[in-house]
Amino acid sequence: MKTFTADYMRQVGVTLLTACGASPEEAAIVADELVEASLMGLDSHGIMRYVQYTEDALSGKIRPGAPIRIVKETDNTAIVDAGSNFGPVSATRMVEIACDKAERHSLSCVVSQNGQHVGRLGSYATKCALRGFVALAVVNSSKHGHWVVPWGGREGRLATNPLAFAAPTQGRPIVLDMSTAAIAEGKIRVLRQMGKPVPPGCILTAEGTPTTDPNLFYGPPHGSILPFGAQSGYKGFGLSLMVEILGGLLAGMATSQDHPYGNGLCILAINPDAFCGREQFAALTEDLKAYMLNTLPAPGYERVVMPGQLDDEMREKRLREGIPVAENTWDAIVAVSHKVGLSL
Amino acid sequence: MKTFTADYMRQVGVTLLTACGASPEEAAIVADELVEASLMGLDSHGIMRYVQYTEDALSGKIRPGAPIRIVKETDNTAIVDAGSNFGPVSATRMVEIACDKAERHSLSCVVSQNGQHVGRLGSYATKCALRGFVALAVVNSSKHGHWVVPWGGREGRLATNPLAFAAPTQGRPIVLDMSTAAIAEGKIRVLRQMGKPVPPGCILTAEGTPTTDPNLFYGPPHGSILPFGAQSGYKGFGLSLMVEILGGLLAGMATSQDHPYGNGLCILAINPDAFCGREQFAALTEDLKAYMLNTLPAPGYERVVMPGQLDDEMREKRLREGIPVAENTWDAIVAVSHKVGLSL
Repeated sequence: MKTFTADYMRQVGVTLLTACGASPEEAAIVADELVEASLMGLDSHGIMRYVQYTEDALSGKIRPGAPIRIVKETDNTAIVDAGSNFGPVSATRMVEIACDKAERHSLSCVVSQNGQHVGRLGSYATKCALRGFVALAVVNSSKHGHWVVPWGGREGRLATNPLAFAAPTQGRPIVLDMSTAAIAEGKIRVLRQMGKPVPPGCILTAEGTPTTDPNLFYGPPHGSILPFGAQSGYKGFGLSLMVEILGGLLAGMATSQDHPYGNGLCILAINPDAFCGREQFAALTEDLKAYMLNTLPAPGYERVVMPGQLDDEMREKRLREGIPVAENTWDAIVAVSHKVGLSL
Repeated sequence: MKTFTADYMRQVGVTLLTACGASPEEAAIVADELVEASLMGLDSHGIMRYVQYTEDALSGKIRPGAPIRIVKETDNTAIVDAGSNFGPVSATRMVEIACDKAERHSLSCVVSQNGQHVGRLGSYATKCALRGFVALAVVNSSKHGHWVVPWGGREGRLATNPLAFAAPTQGRPIVLDMSTAAIAEGKIRVLRQMGKPVPPGCILTAEGTPTTDPNLFYGPPHGSILPFGAQSGYKGFGLSLMVEILGGLLAGMATSQDHPYGNGLCILAINPDAFCGREQFAALTEDLKAYMLNTLPAPGYERVVMPGQLDDEMREKRLREGIPVAENTWDAIVAVSHKVGLSL
């Protein structure tokens, strides 16, 4: 395990991404997103993705510099063609569009076509909340990312379809960022890299039998991931369908067909001024937080925490102590840097 | 166990509810909602609620005939004062407002103040979908209904906060209707009436210890309900907070304060015409359904079903065979009929 500062890892990213064609602005957006995820301890969505993003840019799947255009819009809605630019670049632009529309027209809904991997979904809901809006953000993935079975099935039909929700407070927003699957594919990837088993109740073999071996998930033949919820996994399945409908279908994408895009993003932003008003709303979210945090813990628990709180705490710690990076993750970043003519 | 036709149970409801002050129109809306829930096998939200609704009308908690007014609105948002009329009456009115606004302005968000128990939440999302809109509906409950612990806590701080999502197809809409708690309070009530245990992993005693005894839940001292998700219960907790924020806070209600209302309802409606278009959208939801339903089942499962499909199948069965009603539920309905001067 190596440890690097956030600033250094941000420089690494900017260097790598500009070397494969990103503008300095685009590279900074992408590097910021991945470093922020690593700071929060969400390593599966962090700097390990430099490798994937660089390779995708080299292969032409990601198109650095591609224009991001609105292809259809109303006062409060838009379909955005992300042009296969880096996902964090198009997603950040979609946040601006959603917030501008919600600012003027109370609420908004913006969806993408031709979007690539957006990274940490919660980031975009958080950005909306920092501008004062309540936000729901979801992403689906196209058929090649369908690892997750419908409840009761043994064939992947949906992606891990995360859902993020954020609400402004008087300080840091409340941020929920969760996969509707029992485990994110990126986390299985990290466990395999570390040689560790997957927790029980998360994955199936190709035959539909429960397993904890990440290698049986990757196959071939590849296995599948369960929707989250354990015995209530039908709820996770239902939420995953909601994500698919908002993130894919609204933008005109058929679930059963493969598409070259990575993530179909949908951002819904709600302006509290159209309801109880921004100031009262922020006071009410503080009241909600305080009411949750003063709950007596159950036996075996130390305290109640709000969604996102542990991520914020980890961020503080890693800002102080640096970001630990697994040897093989670092080796892969170094290897990909050679492909773009750099040597880290 | 007795068995009644849906028509008979509807008449019973209309008779009871008009006897306690509802207009024939209001009584028909309420009776329709409760009978539909019973037809679908959702007994906890079905005709057993005639007793509660009648008693609440007699005590003045529910105010039959109370006007339902918009107290604040924009083109695509509204805060509706439900006036403590029957929940299904105000919720049905809110569906109309949300759909009218989404028809003209692409998407809408409508929240309530002073709303009472709405019954089966999925019904309102379904009504929006039958008018052609994608809909998300949530309800919170005021402090007296806070049975559900935050993740890691042992004191109830949230209601069972259900979430419903519906999307139009070329036929019956896709309808997800789920509690964000491990079990709905109404289901614990039914199990207690039947003398049955609660499934493991759903409820805690007042001391925060897991139990399956519904009597230990009702106490005193009363116990609590876990958020859904088993080892991922923090996701259920996060979704419950989302419901609380949309259903309660947007309308200006503080979570930590008790209010005389029953349910705070939020309906979000999205017009597919602002996105890929209504016809293409319906074709895409059919494609989604077919792609899910042709999944090979996992060992131990017969088939994959869509959310809401089992409810629709039960509805067909009970329309043919009648609605089974537990003796003590029927006795309670007969008893409450005496209170309003009727004898069933």
